Amino acid sequence: MADRRRLLSEWIQAVGMRSLRKTVLLAIVASVVLVVALLHSWPTRAYTTVDVWQRPGPAVERHLEERFPEPDHRSANIPYRVKESIAGLLARNGCVCEGESGGMNLPFAQLLFPRVSAHPMHTAFEASELEEMKKRRAKEYQGFQMRSQTPADMLIVAEANNPLQYPTQGMEVRPLKTILIPGLAVQDHPKELYTVNFTSTLGTLNVAAEVEGVKVKGDGEMHMTLTSSLLSNLNRQLQFVTYTNTLFHPSTADTVQFETEGHQAMFTIKVRHGVTPKLYNTGPKGEYNISALVTIATKTFMRYDKLQGLIDSVRKYYSTVTIVIADDSENPKTVSGPYIEHYIMPFGKGWFAGRNLAVSQVTTKYVLWVDDDFIFTANTKLEKLVDVLERTTLDLVGGAVREATGYTATYRQTISIEPGEEEGDCLHMRRGFHHIIQGFPNCVVTDGVINFFLARTDKIQQVGFDPRLARVAHLEFFIDGLGSLHVGSCDDVIVNHATKIKLPWVSQSESDKTYAKFRYPPASSDATHTKNGLLYFKNRFQCLTHN
Amino acid sequence: MADRRRLLSEWIQAVGMRSLRKTVLLAIVASVVLVVALLHSWPTRAYTTVDVWQRPGPAVERHLEERFPEPDHRSANIPYRVKESIAGLLARNGCVCEGESGGMNLPFAQLLFPRVSAHPMHTAFEASELEEMKKRRAKEYQGFQMRSQTPADMLIVAEANNPLQYPTQGMEVRPLKTILIPGLAVQDHPKELYTVNFTSTLGTLNVAAEVEGVKVKGDGEMHMTLTSSLLSNLNRQLQFVTYTNTLFHPSTADTVQFETEGHQAMFTIKVRHGVTPKLYNTGPKGEYNISALVTIATKTFMRYDKLQGLIDSVRKYYSTVTIVIADDSENPKTVSGPYIEHYIMPFGKGWFAGRNLAVSQVTTKYVLWVDDDFIFTANTKLEKLVDVLERTTLDLVGGAVREATGYTATYRQTISIEPGEEEGDCLHMRRGFHHIIQGFPNCVVTDGVINFFLARTDKIQQVGFDPRLARVAHLEFFIDGLGSLHVGSCDDVIVNHATKIKLPWVSQSESDKTYAKFRYPPASSDATHTKNGLLYFKNRFQCLTHN
Repeated sequence: MADRRRLLSEWIQAVGMRSLRKTVLLAIVASVVLVVALLHSWPTRAYTTVDVWQRPGPAVERHLEERFPEPDHRSANIPYRVKESIAGLLARNGCVCEGESGGMNLPFAQLLFPRVSAHPMHTAFEASELEEMKKRRAKEYQGFQMRSQTPADMLIVAEANNPLQYPTQGMEVRPLKTILIPGLAVQDHPKELYTVNFTSTLGTLNVAAEVEGVKVKGDGEMHMTLTSSLLSNLNRQLQFVTYTNTLFHPSTADTVQFETEGHQAMFTIKVRHGVTPKLYNTGPKGEYNISALVTIATKTFMRYDKLQGLIDSVRKYYSTVTIVIADDSENPKTVSGPYIEHYIMPFGKGWFAGRNLAVSQVTTKYVLWVDDDFIFTANTKLEKLVDVLERTTLDLVGGAVREATGYTATYRQTISIEPGEEEGDCLHMRRGFHHIIQGFPNCVVTDGVINFFLARTDKIQQVGFDPRLARVAHLEFFIDGLGSLHVGSCDDVIVNHATKIKLPWVSQSESDKTYAKFRYPPASSDATHTKNGLLYFKNRFQCLTHN
Repeated sequence: MADRRRLLSEWIQAVGMRSLRKTVLLAIVASVVLVVALLHSWPTRAYTTVDVWQRPGPAVERHLEERFPEPDHRSANIPYRVKESIAGLLARNGCVCEGESGGMNLPFAQLLFPRVSAHPMHTAFEASELEEMKKRRAKEYQGFQMRSQTPADMLIVAEANNPLQYPTQGMEVRPLKTILIPGLAVQDHPKELYTVNFTSTLGTLNVAAEVEGVKVKGDGEMHMTLTSSLLSNLNRQLQFVTYTNTLFHPSTADTVQFETEGHQAMFTIKVRHGVTPKLYNTGPKGEYNISALVTIATKTFMRYDKLQGLIDSVRKYYSTVTIVIADDSENPKTVSGPYIEHYIMPFGKGWFAGRNLAVSQVTTKYVLWVDDDFIFTANTKLEKLVDVLERTTLDLVGGAVREATGYTATYRQTISIEPGEEEGDCLHMRRGFHHIIQGFPNCVVTDGVINFFLARTDKIQQVGFDPRLARVAHLEFFIDGLGSLHVGSCDDVIVNHATKIKLPWVSQSESDKTYAKFRYPPASSDATHTKNGLLYFKNRFQCLTHN
């Protein structure tokens, strides 16, 4: 028994050792293989790096319109005569800060013939800090330029007699997606071999189908060549060329070079997400439901009597419209009632901060801005303003404000910016408007209006009221809105202004005095937060002219 | 005496009558002439009308990338083989709301191999109101399209072998201003007479100089012709062609046709104000001055203990940074201290309303968003986040939030939108990122991050937090920011999260209970103000897929 056990154990040992070793070996090998297979099949992704550093890019050729092009050798001797009336309209090399000089100095001259005055902005700063401010502004501006310019702004000229046909505008691809490039073709004279090639930088080129008789090289890369001896086959292949964006950026453009022997072309593919809409529910069909469409927004400071006057007058005509009130008074009182939203701010935080706050809370399609001392009357028909915005592409439409004297103002202003160089741009404001709106004879298109207007909520929130403007400010909002807001003004929707006429025998109330102290204060300590300081630093203006 | 008087008076009468008549006549004529002269010289301006009505414009040819171009008669017989790997990447005709089906149903499957699930958005609405919502959304979307599309989006293809040379990209004119059109030329074969003409729609064409030997017709109008027998003279004249915008619009484009016999070309001139910068004062040079550069913003609701915990922890490291607090608690308590700005809102106004309010008050270059239950530690180095935004073109950079368990999250999400048809677009969200940022090995580029991030104030104010989102919401901000915000995420700047772990033996405090009631509420009454309802109506999505 012991023998057999011994022999068995010896045998097991002998066989077992080898098997054990083998098994262990096999197990080890199997595990390794499994792990390798697992690692291999594990969804790995090689993350490439992306360079998003702020560096200077290629200079954009933008100054062509400022001077006449140099003649080349062929045209140097061709005589021409300058047409002053047109040449004078072209932009100068940098703007100059000057108003209109001279003019009559009669009593009502400024009233009848308002002269243009020019105001340099750098005066907001002490001489000692101006140099530093200039440097800082230039540095911030450089960063801004690098973030806002794209290859889609670059000047491209199509060469003449190019056998290449290609798209010059309208191509867009969403980030990291693929599109077919439309409109590509070659119309060359008969040749033995036709070759075209493509070069891109933010993505790769490929073909969605392979056409017989065409050799494709570099598909899936940033440089692709197509060759064929048959022109019609090459052209059929060109209808299947694709572009895939591979270097992520939410809003940029790739410039693609397209070449054939002796000729080249350049075109741009915009790389960006589509514009996602921000739509508002307008309430049930039928007549304009003002409560569903409009929120009234205002800011108040130390004059609850005026504010209550506004609210009471609104409620006479619109009992359920939401009124949003931003309040930075010193000892805030409760303002309550149905559809009233009262927001308390730190004392004296400021005018535009309050405007920005009020507007940030609106959930309806439109917002009506009013000052806290307005009074609604039977002439304050909000339906008319809603009608204008519902039926036109305008973003904001102003009304008219009627003083106690009967004088009614629309305060229409046109605004334009003349580019300058390192000193900054020149801002030009003039009373007036651009055109009358077809179909709305009481309404015009302009750039700035009085502080009584209806606006699309998404647009006004996008532009915003800069909270750095603590006290007196108005047109700064419209300056910030230039290019974004399409502005109109109608003179047949009128709101009354609670009187501001100071009668000499009526003493100012305490709250009036405090109000006046804040409303018309001495200069702030932070120069860049004053109106001119902000125009200088934030918007990069050197000069403001107005009449 | 009486005689002399009588004779005198008779004489006066005789002479006087004629003179009187003459004088009166002269006086009348003189007045008329004066009035006419005055009226004539009075600065009158013929205001033209402008049509800004919302009407359907030319359909934008955008669907080329969705299907293969039809072969014309020449290429119909050329065989080709579809390359599935590429053809499959092209956009389909409308997106389909589907997730990933099948997959393992093991316990940790969703954790290890997260499956993509698809959620239709229309379910936010009762069946009875869905049809009405669809119609209303379509109408609002149509208005949005009319306001946002411009001729600069239109597909233009340059024809081959065109003797015309012309600019295809990069031309801009400020509204109502004039530019020289660069790059124009003709390179035609020898002819007796060379003629080119231009046609524009939003402005007029002219020449800034007149070249000998060239006849100009229609200068100052919307159709201008240049004729010459000498090609080099015509080309010299083409260097002086100008465009003047006359129909005001703050942001549009004019498509100009350029033709010669047998050939034509089209190019676009953008009509828009330049982009006015919004720069911020960064404080004195040297190291990053966090108080001058950053404002901390947060929203609080019914948990002043957590809020005080946040404030105390911030002050350990940044004693003078401004903290802006939006508070919609039921019985607001005073929160005060140096550099603290406390804003009181109507009770329960909402999460995104509060975020929008806080951010609307920031006056520094950057804003740091924190939740009111975060705790700053020695790892919460804001200088690192500022460094990223100062040195790259990113607009927002997220950090990491560390739970009590030690688990640290960056919550990186990539977001893309697949265009759909009338049903709406499809929104795709996936965990992950796009690239690692060169030079910042702990940072990546992505589309959405956790609620701890530093952002450029002007960009975050421009995107905004939609106040219609009252309760649970997070990625909606990043969805609204798609295309505007360039987003990054760094995992080496960490803030702690005050514990949310509900220990079973610790009973919830009253304030915790109220907080929970509002934080995780039942569905709101206005369906378009729920998360899905808003995605459906406001952003026009039909579907959301995510993993």
